[in-house]
Amino acid sequence: MDAKDSKVLLFKLTANPILAEEVAQKLHLQLSLSEVDHFADGEVLARPLCSVRDQTVYVIQSTANPVSERLMELLVFIDGLKNANAKEINLVIPYYGFCRQDRITREGEPITAKLVAKILEAAGVNLVITMDLHSPQIQGFFSCPVDALSPTDLFAQYYQDKLAKLGIATQDVCVVSPDHGSLHRARNLASKLPNSTLAVIDKRRPAPNKAEVVNVVGEVKDKVCIIIDDIIDTAGTVLACADCLFARGAKKIFVGGTHGIFSQGAADRLLKSKIEDIVITDSIEQNIKGINAISLAPMIAGVIEATEEGRPIPDSWMDFH
Amino acid sequence: MDAKDSKVLLFKLTANPILAEEVAQKLHLQLSLSEVDHFADGEVLARPLCSVRDQTVYVIQSTANPVSERLMELLVFIDGLKNANAKEINLVIPYYGFCRQDRITREGEPITAKLVAKILEAAGVNLVITMDLHSPQIQGFFSCPVDALSPTDLFAQYYQDKLAKLGIATQDVCVVSPDHGSLHRARNLASKLPNSTLAVIDKRRPAPNKAEVVNVVGEVKDKVCIIIDDIIDTAGTVLACADCLFARGAKKIFVGGTHGIFSQGAADRLLKSKIEDIVITDSIEQNIKGINAISLAPMIAGVIEATEEGRPIPDSWMDFH
Amino acid sequence: MDAKDSKVLLFKLTANPILAEEVAQKLHLQLSLSEVDHFADGEVLARPLCSVRDQTVYVIQSTANPVSERLMELLVFIDGLKNANAKEINLVIPYYGFCRQDRITREGEPITAKLVAKILEAAGVNLVITMDLHSPQIQGFFSCPVDALSPTDLFAQYYQDKLAKLGIATQDVCVVSPDHGSLHRARNLASKLPNSTLAVIDKRRPAPNKAEVVNVVGEVKDKVCIIIDDIIDTAGTVLACADCLFARGAKKIFVGGTHGIFSQGAADRLLKSKIEDIVITDSIEQNIKGINAISLAPMIAGVIEATEEGRPIPDSWMDFH
Amino acid sequence: MDAKDSKVLLFKLTANPILAEEVAQKLHLQLSLSEVDHFADGEVLARPLCSVRDQTVYVIQSTANPVSERLMELLVFIDGLKNANAKEINLVIPYYGFCRQDRITREGEPITAKLVAKILEAAGVNLVITMDLHSPQIQGFFSCPVDALSPTDLFAQYYQDKLAKLGIATQDVCVVSPDHGSLHRARNLASKLPNSTLAVIDKRRPAPNKAEVVNVVGEVKDKVCIIIDDIIDTAGTVLACADCLFARGAKKIFVGGTHGIFSQGAADRLLKSKIEDIVITDSIEQNIKGINAISLAPMIAGVIEATEEGRPIPDSWMDFH
Amino acid sequence: MDAKDSKVLLFKLTANPILAEEVAQKLHLQLSLSEVDHFADGEVLARPLCSVRDQTVYVIQSTANPVSERLMELLVFIDGLKNANAKEINLVIPYYGFCRQDRITREGEPITAKLVAKILEAAGVNLVITMDLHSPQIQGFFSCPVDALSPTDLFAQYYQDKLAKLGIATQDVCVVSPDHGSLHRARNLASKLPNSTLAVIDKRRPAPNKAEVVNVVGEVKDKVCIIIDDIIDTAGTVLACADCLFARGAKKIFVGGTHGIFSQGAADRLLKSKIEDIVITDSIEQNIKGINAISLAPMIAGVIEATEEGRPIPDSWMDFH
Amino acid sequence: MDAKDSKVLLFKLTANPILAEEVAQKLHLQLSLSEVDHFADGEVLARPLCSVRDQTVYVIQSTANPVSERLMELLVFIDGLKNANAKEINLVIPYYGFCRQDRITREGEPITAKLVAKILEAAGVNLVITMDLHSPQIQGFFSCPVDALSPTDLFAQYYQDKLAKLGIATQDVCVVSPDHGSLHRARNLASKLPNSTLAVIDKRRPAPNKAEVVNVVGEVKDKVCIIIDDIIDTAGTVLACADCLFARGAKKIFVGGTHGIFSQGAADRLLKSKIEDIVITDSIEQNIKGINAISLAPMIAGVIEATEEGRPIPDSWMDFH
Repeated sequence: MDAKDSKVLLFKLTANPILAEEVAQKLHLQLSLSEVDHFADGEVLARPLCSVRDQTVYVIQSTANPVSERLMELLVFIDGLKNANAKEINLVIPYYGFCRQDRITREGEPITAKLVAKILEAAGVNLVITMDLHSPQIQGFFSCPVDALSPTDLFAQYYQDKLAKLGIATQDVCVVSPDHGSLHRARNLASKLPNSTLAVIDKRRPAPNKAEVVNVVGEVKDKVCIIIDDIIDTAGTVLACADCLFARGAKKIFVGGTHGIFSQGAADRLLKSKIEDIVITDSIEQNIKGINAISLAPMIAGVIEATEEGRPIPDSWMDFH
Repeated sequence: MDAKDSKVLLFKLTANPILAEEVAQKLHLQLSLSEVDHFADGEVLARPLCSVRDQTVYVIQSTANPVSERLMELLVFIDGLKNANAKEINLVIPYYGFCRQDRITREGEPITAKLVAKILEAAGVNLVITMDLHSPQIQGFFSCPVDALSPTDLFAQYYQDKLAKLGIATQDVCVVSPDHGSLHRARNLASKLPNSTLAVIDKRRPAPNKAEVVNVVGEVKDKVCIIIDDIIDTAGTVLACADCLFARGAKKIFVGGTHGIFSQGAADRLLKSKIEDIVITDSIEQNIKGINAISLAPMIAGVIEATEEGRPIPDSWMDFH
Repeated sequence: MDAKDSKVLLFKLTANPILAEEVAQKLHLQLSLSEVDHFADGEVLARPLCSVRDQTVYVIQSTANPVSERLMELLVFIDGLKNANAKEINLVIPYYGFCRQDRITREGEPITAKLVAKILEAAGVNLVITMDLHSPQIQGFFSCPVDALSPTDLFAQYYQDKLAKLGIATQDVCVVSPDHGSLHRARNLASKLPNSTLAVIDKRRPAPNKAEVVNVVGEVKDKVCIIIDDIIDTAGTVLACADCLFARGAKKIFVGGTHGIFSQGAADRLLKSKIEDIVITDSIEQNIKGINAISLAPMIAGVIEATEEGRPIPDSWMDFH
Repeated sequence: MDAKDSKVLLFKLTANPILAEEVAQKLHLQLSLSEVDHFADGEVLARPLCSVRDQTVYVIQSTANPVSERLMELLVFIDGLKNANAKEINLVIPYYGFCRQDRITREGEPITAKLVAKILEAAGVNLVITMDLHSPQIQGFFSCPVDALSPTDLFAQYYQDKLAKLGIATQDVCVVSPDHGSLHRARNLASKLPNSTLAVIDKRRPAPNKAEVVNVVGEVKDKVCIIIDDIIDTAGTVLACADCLFARGAKKIFVGGTHGIFSQGAADRLLKSKIEDIVITDSIEQNIKGINAISLAPMIAGVIEATEEGRPIPDSWMDFH
Repeated sequence: MDAKDSKVLLFKLTANPILAEEVAQKLHLQLSLSEVDHFADGEVLARPLCSVRDQTVYVIQSTANPVSERLMELLVFIDGLKNANAKEINLVIPYYGFCRQDRITREGEPITAKLVAKILEAAGVNLVITMDLHSPQIQGFFSCPVDALSPTDLFAQYYQDKLAKLGIATQDVCVVSPDHGSLHRARNLASKLPNSTLAVIDKRRPAPNKAEVVNVVGEVKDKVCIIIDDIIDTAGTVLACADCLFARGAKKIFVGGTHGIFSQGAADRLLKSKIEDIVITDSIEQNIKGINAISLAPMIAGVIEATEEGRPIPDSWMDFH
Repeated sequence: MDAKDSKVLLFKLTANPILAEEVAQKLHLQLSLSEVDHFADGEVLARPLCSVRDQTVYVIQSTANPVSERLMELLVFIDGLKNANAKEINLVIPYYGFCRQDRITREGEPITAKLVAKILEAAGVNLVITMDLHSPQIQGFFSCPVDALSPTDLFAQYYQDKLAKLGIATQDVCVVSPDHGSLHRARNLASKLPNSTLAVIDKRRPAPNKAEVVNVVGEVKDKVCIIIDDIIDTAGTVLACADCLFARGAKKIFVGGTHGIFSQGAADRLLKSKIEDIVITDSIEQNIKGINAISLAPMIAGVIEATEEGRPIPDSWMDFH
């Protein structure tokens, strides 16, 4: 982005400082200064430390745990930007918190993923760039445009490199979806690993009152299995999958997850397991020894650049399914 | 609903005249008069033929084929109600058209299910009552409350009666979901047919470039299979399922679908097949010899009554999953 | 429009493909690719086939018969543009359907011309360019700017050429308004044909229960009469006018109408009548042998260019009255 | 309206104190107390002097001259009602000021009749009841319901009484519209005076550059003419009509106008003319000796009562045309 | 509130369970059941555990520390209520968090008190009842009605009782405002303690670069001083006031504060000081030995009752100044 | 602003023609032509006399007395700009009328400062630039950005010049705030007059029923006092201050007020008093012999320029306190 594009300002808040820095570097920009502070009673204050008058602003902030705090930071920062007469307020929300609350499962429940969209828009958002939304319908909860990105290209690159380094041929790889809802992720990844195969874990009760039975649909024996999911939270699903795959003869297991939440000691349990490689993206900033993180910076920088220059972005970056 | 509740007016438009009549009867109301007409150039005009001043109005209209026409009818009718000072405009949309356009699958696509929600609200809707929404997230596309109902109770009653009449025990029944996304429907129905079992059709490619393989997960041999789905459109899915089930030894096949669209000769093909019984609800008004229709009138009337009297409706009527 | 303006994209949908092509040519642009398709059950899908990220988009589509279909096409296309992050969505609606539903004439009626404005805005429109609105108040139904254009200059040019070719002097011409509401159109046209005169057809009952009497106010004997109206729908009005003018000694009759709907065999009846020349604009795409069509392309292209370059458009192009 | 309906509060502001009092009497209500005051620098303050908590409120105020002042009074009063938690805020605006600014006649003009609708709604209005709107499309400028009333029944009663008293038979009466746009008013009135006839004043240039010619379409010789119009402002139109009618042999002339603005000495000029009787409604409060005023109170009270009790109002009260 | 009013439901969330219980008792209602829970990753879920269909709902929740969490709880609960078709959603927010962020003091700052109003309204609030707002303008940040209550009556009762018990005459009392902005609170309280006097602490620099000087405007020697403020946060202000008053000969010091935040060890410091009596309301639920809390329940219950029955509330309960 | 920036148009209406002219000069622009007119019945019409198509427009208009008229002028002008497709509508409102109605002081009162913000936004405003708002919270009544400017720099320059001319040293100056609410103004001014001191007039009753006592907090004996306030309306406050200051030995008194309303003969009374110098800004256009006016043009032009060029404005120009 050359001098003429200097009117784009990029801000970080507390959730993704390293990612924000990397995006800025890719765009040959300095991160603009901002401040996040708390009053004695815990109320948050966030504000830009430079003029945003008539500038196009991008703010990078995942609404990950502590999610209410992070969301509030973002909301007050947006309000400050608007008061200070920013021209456009664009959000990069690598992990969109509350995404699993996207429907009503019991009487009286909120649809929080919709509510958050509504209040971000009430605060004054023009564009949202986000990664691997839990369900594609969430895009429809916003009135403003949403760039719903897919990490498949990044994971494909990661595994191509890793497999090459380990001397594993892609035809020995089986990409595994931990459930039916995530199948598109596995299918997309497999399509980028030539001759790899596809499997899905099927977990269901044969009849409503019977015990749950876990099946693997697809052949995994002697395969290097890559389990690919959107969210690794308590890691319960992934660990159960791994057990099941090993039981069916899987040779090695790699695990890839877009959003690494790792609550309730999940990281420890994963690291202690027989899983050989765990990789997430930096949508949620973590620093866990033994867990690799793929940087989203190149893709986010690419989308910002394309948006500012009015150019398309590659179809494979979009999360269409 | 007694005389004191006479301020509730119920209207039909062109999509569901019979259902509307039945709902009115259940509520001990007369359907209020309305008119749907077209100008020489085809423009639609719809309006109430009685005063709606300060009345609570319910309009029953599925947005089924011709969907743009039906939607426009509904929109102009709402506008007329609003102009005429109706107190509340509540819609009963048994089949919510465009529901399958609930996400973006290719660059530039609309999210039409969201768009329709937005324009109904722009026209002035207070409440939407609908049946078996294609995806539960659609509820979040509306800002007004949406009663998303489930037909499971109605199908359960239908099949209990039918099985009893045919002398088939429920333990000989296997409820089959035609794909993973519809599994909750099959599970709910099975839970109301004691000792019945559950199966799901799994259709997938073993690897991205391989031919699709169809599996039945669950035992169907010698079973009376009930395939249950939300929408029967071209019936391609259902017929392929049936073939597959017969191939695996199913004894008899019944098919239940909430919304019977039957496009491209689907009804004929179904009737000519070996499927023994086809049942839909009257969410889309059809009159096809050989295809049964369960009336939604009792459930819709129940929800209207509960809403007017501020009472809860049974949890099993709600489409939570 | 030079290279620097390449960020303007122009799309057609199904209503005005030829006009759209001509506008593109005038602007030295290629029409951008789009797709309009239907699902098995008739639901419409429309989408751009190129990236519109940060582009200013113009969509050309009259909401003429089948009007609900055309409107829905436009709405879903707008939604797709918005989702894909278009910068500005401007509509060119040469014929604004439902324009005659601009007021309530009976209890319970919609004001559909207002409703359509509201839902277009709910979908996300920034600017509307339209031609010869049935009533000027319709502009006030929109919150966004509306360029309400007048075709008078185009008709004036057409008739000057035609009269010259036929060797008819403009002082032998009488411009006739078919009713009082259209008088401004006739007056404007007459003012561009030097020394022409003006007449109006007055159709009324002398008392509420008496038979209707048709009068011609103004002298038409031995005149070449040009009847000018906004909409030719069933052509009933125009044919009655013509009879009346011939009865009063008109020598020749030409008919000009901005929007040629021609429903219920209107074109046939007009062509079989003694009317010598019938001309419409291409606001509604027709291809009827014997009926001429004036292209709106130069004027529409002019307005788009002026808008993009921040220049005024000629006062005579605006429909002020 | 009985005790149970005591939750309806009726307020006056400065424009129609007498009419408001009469409406209250018809409804067997006391006018609720309010205050309109000005600060030293001229800023207006208006507020209710009683609690409106959870009450349905009607405010009676024409936005007549001084129109900005009256509108501002109304706006601040609405804001106060809303702050004080009124349940519903309904406006009775007998004369809707700025109604003639309902379209753009020159570049850069506002559509003030739309603007006023928008800001009343921004302030928080639920229902508008108004009388004889200058153009019926204005109703479409509001999103909330508008009861657009017609004074024809009231004028009919007035003239029936007057003619009876003067011993004039209705077949000797000709109802005259001062221009084509007002013809529906004359037609409606004539239909209530048995055997009366109808005429319209036609004022136009035979060609764009010629002098204007005034015609009377219809027979007025020896007739008692009733000129009926919506607004009497400078009275220029009415006086010119009267001259023209006398010149064509009219025996007597009565003038009826819904809204009596009487600017620039209009009342004087009318009273000094040969016009025999001038009658307006009290939509704009006037007290001019020699000019009669018909009370709108019974009709307004009727509409309020019907609205509160959810009953229809007579079709002849509505301004459909 | 009798059986007929049973359609009012009252909910607590986590901030004010005891106050909510007391309000319910005053209204002879049972608190309706609700649930506040967290997912593994910390996301909050709050929902009613009973049907709210067509019910009027009151939710009692201060947005006190942890303020973002409490606000989010409230927002998701509102969303659930709305989805479940509640008729009216009324909030009782005894302490309105972020109230001190009511203006911009440095470039780029948010106006968080406005932002919170906006997002509560986006979520769907109909009425807000709150206590002793930090600045009266905050009421204007809401579009919905706000009942801004004053605790003066409650403090007056407390001090009358206390002084009587201690045998102190009110003429020996001086009510002290800790700064000029809080003077109206002190004035209101003093007016309810006959013959008490008034003082204000004036803290300012004599010139911009000089040291701050603290003055007491008013006579406090040998007086029993009651310092009255809206918020006691770090207690810095109150402790400095007390020092200053003792230095000027005050005999005893009582401290009253509407909202007891007590951050950074404030309670301890207050309890260790020579201040004789500290009283707050239960707007923020605390349980600190040695600090008294006045219940807001009677006043809140009174306002709810008045709102449901359409009756006024006493002027002295409203925070007008 | 060079040729490339020629797309900025600047308009005046009736309130500030001279100021607008000066701002235009500073920006090297011609004021664009506009028209403000009234119809016979007093209705206002305001419109631009040039094309604003796709232009960024600034309109300069204080809403000073006659305030409703001036506000209406502004609203209709905005509507016209919007209809004519202006790109951005920015308002410069040097004096924001109704600013003192920023809170509710008695039951039923409007918050007119909020209402005006809401209706300006309903009309379609993008940015407001205003001067010395009566309370900083008013900024939060707007959803669009508000540049709330401070005149301190301008007053400081004025007094530095004046004192230099009169040979008065700044250490002999005491800047006086007429009440506690205005103290920040006095403090800011004093900080720019080296070694000047600060005083505040304290007016209060020692007890609720006692007579008011006026104190001067700070030393004014033998000082040249500058009383600085935001609004001079009836001048009652300022004159009482002056009396009090002279009584305490002030040598000379200067008065500075941002907004000179001068109602009820205020100017005369001030000029007849012993006050030596009175200065206001030209936020409200006055032409009173003996009262100086500081031009806001340089500051307003500076803010417009900064906004158009995306540059910050000096912190000292912003009204942060």
